[in-house]
Amino acid sequence: MNEEKFFEDYCIGSSRVTAGRTITETDFVIHAGHTGDFFPHHMDAEFMKTQAFGQRIAHGTMVFALGVGLTASRINPVAFSYGYDRLRFIKPVFIGDTIRTRLTVARKEPDPKRPDQGRVWELTEVLNQRDEVVLACEHIHLVQQRKH
Amino acid sequence: MNEEKFFEDYCIGSSRVTAGRTITETDFVIHAGHTGDFFPHHMDAEFMKTQAFGQRIAHGTMVFALGVGLTASRINPVAFSYGYDRLRFIKPVFIGDTIRTRLTVARKEPDPKRPDQGRVWELTEVLNQRDEVVLACEHIHLVQQRKH
Amino acid sequence: MNEEKFFEDYCIGSSRVTAGRTITETDFVIHAGHTGDFFPHHMDAEFMKTQAFGQRIAHGTMVFALGVGLTASRINPVAFSYGYDRLRFIKPVFIGDTIRTRLTVARKEPDPKRPDQGRVWELTEVLNQRDEVVLACEHIHLVQQRKH
Amino acid sequence: MNEEKFFEDYCIGSSRVTAGRTITETDFVIHAGHTGDFFPHHMDAEFMKTQAFGQRIAHGTMVFALGVGLTASRINPVAFSYGYDRLRFIKPVFIGDTIRTRLTVARKEPDPKRPDQGRVWELTEVLNQRDEVVLACEHIHLVQQRKH
Amino acid sequence: MNEEKFFEDYCIGSSRVTAGRTITETDFVIHAGHTGDFFPHHMDAEFMKTQAFGQRIAHGTMVFALGVGLTASRINPVAFSYGYDRLRFIKPVFIGDTIRTRLTVARKEPDPKRPDQGRVWELTEVLNQRDEVVLACEHIHLVQQRKH
Amino acid sequence: MNEEKFFEDYCIGSSRVTAGRTITETDFVIHAGHTGDFFPHHMDAEFMKTQAFGQRIAHGTMVFALGVGLTASRINPVAFSYGYDRLRFIKPVFIGDTIRTRLTVARKEPDPKRPDQGRVWELTEVLNQRDEVVLACEHIHLVQQRKH
Repeated sequence: MNEEKFFEDYCIGSSRVTAGRTITETDFVIHAGHTGDFFPHHMDAEFMKTQAFGQRIAHGTMVFALGVGLTASRINPVAFSYGYDRLRFIKPVFIGDTIRTRLTVARKEPDPKRPDQGRVWELTEVLNQRDEVVLACEHIHLVQQRKH
Repeated sequence: MNEEKFFEDYCIGSSRVTAGRTITETDFVIHAGHTGDFFPHHMDAEFMKTQAFGQRIAHGTMVFALGVGLTASRINPVAFSYGYDRLRFIKPVFIGDTIRTRLTVARKEPDPKRPDQGRVWELTEVLNQRDEVVLACEHIHLVQQRKH
Repeated sequence: MNEEKFFEDYCIGSSRVTAGRTITETDFVIHAGHTGDFFPHHMDAEFMKTQAFGQRIAHGTMVFALGVGLTASRINPVAFSYGYDRLRFIKPVFIGDTIRTRLTVARKEPDPKRPDQGRVWELTEVLNQRDEVVLACEHIHLVQQRKH
Repeated sequence: MNEEKFFEDYCIGSSRVTAGRTITETDFVIHAGHTGDFFPHHMDAEFMKTQAFGQRIAHGTMVFALGVGLTASRINPVAFSYGYDRLRFIKPVFIGDTIRTRLTVARKEPDPKRPDQGRVWELTEVLNQRDEVVLACEHIHLVQQRKH
Repeated sequence: MNEEKFFEDYCIGSSRVTAGRTITETDFVIHAGHTGDFFPHHMDAEFMKTQAFGQRIAHGTMVFALGVGLTASRINPVAFSYGYDRLRFIKPVFIGDTIRTRLTVARKEPDPKRPDQGRVWELTEVLNQRDEVVLACEHIHLVQQRKH
Repeated sequence: MNEEKFFEDYCIGSSRVTAGRTITETDFVIHAGHTGDFFPHHMDAEFMKTQAFGQRIAHGTMVFALGVGLTASRINPVAFSYGYDRLRFIKPVFIGDTIRTRLTVARKEPDPKRPDQGRVWELTEVLNQRDEVVLACEHIHLVQQRKH
């Protein structure tokens, strides 16, 4: 599953979509237990019946972690995750929704401080079963340039 | 645990630090299982002996989700999480490190589109037991303004 | 979240109710796996269709542990949990029920052996979404007296 | 595993000891996540280094639930768990301790309200690897009397 | 729970059936997370609506591990698990199915290399709530012969 | 990750090795909790100190499920898992061991009953960090033949 992909190999606009995964009540309970966030928005079905959404909604951190996790199928040994920009929670995710993640190379530029590296911004969009974007962010990679 | 805190109540520079939590090998295994990210950086102690860090390192998404989770002790019913900016993985987290999260109100401004709301940027820093910042991001809240 | 509350600060009759939490099939499976109690009352839906309750019922130890867990939001550094008396399983808890816990200071008395401490009995009642008490017990705390 | 044992079959003083189980750091993390109790006594190794015990201690509710769980090997279809009395946390349980549970029939009496049933008090003691009692309680069973 | 059963004590044709266990969506999620197998056959309800089964199906390794786990109630200290032959996945297991395991002593023979031991083949069949065999295999035990 | 591989595409002797995964105490606890097998061989460190291995050993079903899980990186939509033969537990796996799985196409033959399919036997060997085979089995696939 290792696949070297250098800075020069990232093509602006190229894109892939992951396999899907149904978000279950189990995921809600595991994420609450893992993070310690037991807020009633995620855990109290009775309370949520009285709110606008009408039902429990997924933790934002879970949609992010599971959406990013879906992309973890190939290791690029010459890239390093630098961080994320503009992470936005666009629509709620409910129990039973099925998510997939779409990655699109959005832009890239040589790294100002490291002459042998570049930065690549990969638009990361989590979609539901109706192809609605529920979460979006830009994943920034530091990637090696090919040796000359 | 509910505590109404309006836009006007956020003071620039005010800050709090959460309780601590030791990151265990169990957390690594649970997070891999929850997200499906079984990359050897997190899961293969033998491989990591051959790498610069010398040992397994925590998933970035886990440090983020657990660091944010530590702050989930008070519900502000007049605020809503809008997203995160400038999420950066600054230092690795190893098995046995103990993290805490420091929240600092960094800036705020009226929402350009919603006259009764404002945006608050809360600097979110995850610290380890040596008070080093291991992860930083800006959490953006949409907060109601008091009615006049 | 630390909040010092001395023996003198406990008022007989004062009470609080926690946030709610929906008990899920996931909780049944996690509790069985955590304790090793896979009795068919909790795990075999087909068998339970033939019994009086008609469906799986929660482990008593789970309703106790989760009901007590709901109260774990404030640490009192001058109190210590001594034990529980009169723990009773009053009504079954089913998958989908939402529980909350009500704490009421029931009585207190100086500790006979420790002159600087007292005992406080806190009635701990787990309620379901119909406000029925499903579990009750008395939580005994050893609490420091203020220094004179 | 079903084994009918009627009120008359319980002999005062008879006793059995379960298999052992090593309490792991994983159990601490699972129990915190299951109950939502992330108090630093159980989760923050750095904090606990500064306290009298010197290390993290198990949740009382976990020692109870796991200690009782160890006894769940035989189903008695003519008995019903009524509750527990005098549940006491006698010694701390640390990561790496190995517990077993000793059950001793302590006393029994006909049920005052139900002529065909009786109550049996079973002393339930959780022991560690040094045979110290770390938790004790009395488990009260409602048990059918044999038909005449 | 220890029960010595020597080679001579295994009777061809003798059989027992375990307690039942309902397979939940939680078990699917836990098994995917434990093994890292997130194939859409087990995890993507939308995809499976388009396939012949119409819904998610259990991992074969899970039906095997849970079916064998149901039999783990008595320890035979004079036997050792040697392996399994002819493990076959006969019918799919769906969320909500309830399984039980039937063990039947199929054949036995003295071990050709170890004069004090014998091999016992135990037919292991996992049944669903309609008494259909969903998985079958032969469990091979190495068992001590009685000393003469 | 979908990759069609027909019966004709399997070359006898071709082989691949998966990424590694360190088996943790957490995996022992999760597998016991998932399967209900809490035998002291896997769960009681004190007992195992008195036995030949000197420490807890992994469940055979876990080494099998995790070893097979490591191979679950590519979906072959024209193949179907038929079962396993000759599953053998060759060496114990201890906490801290790191496993990888080696797959080797061992033999193949046209299916006697289904003219458009064939059977492929894939030798599945789980290795530890010393390259010792700890578990071996033959995975039987039913694979479509190319259309003529």
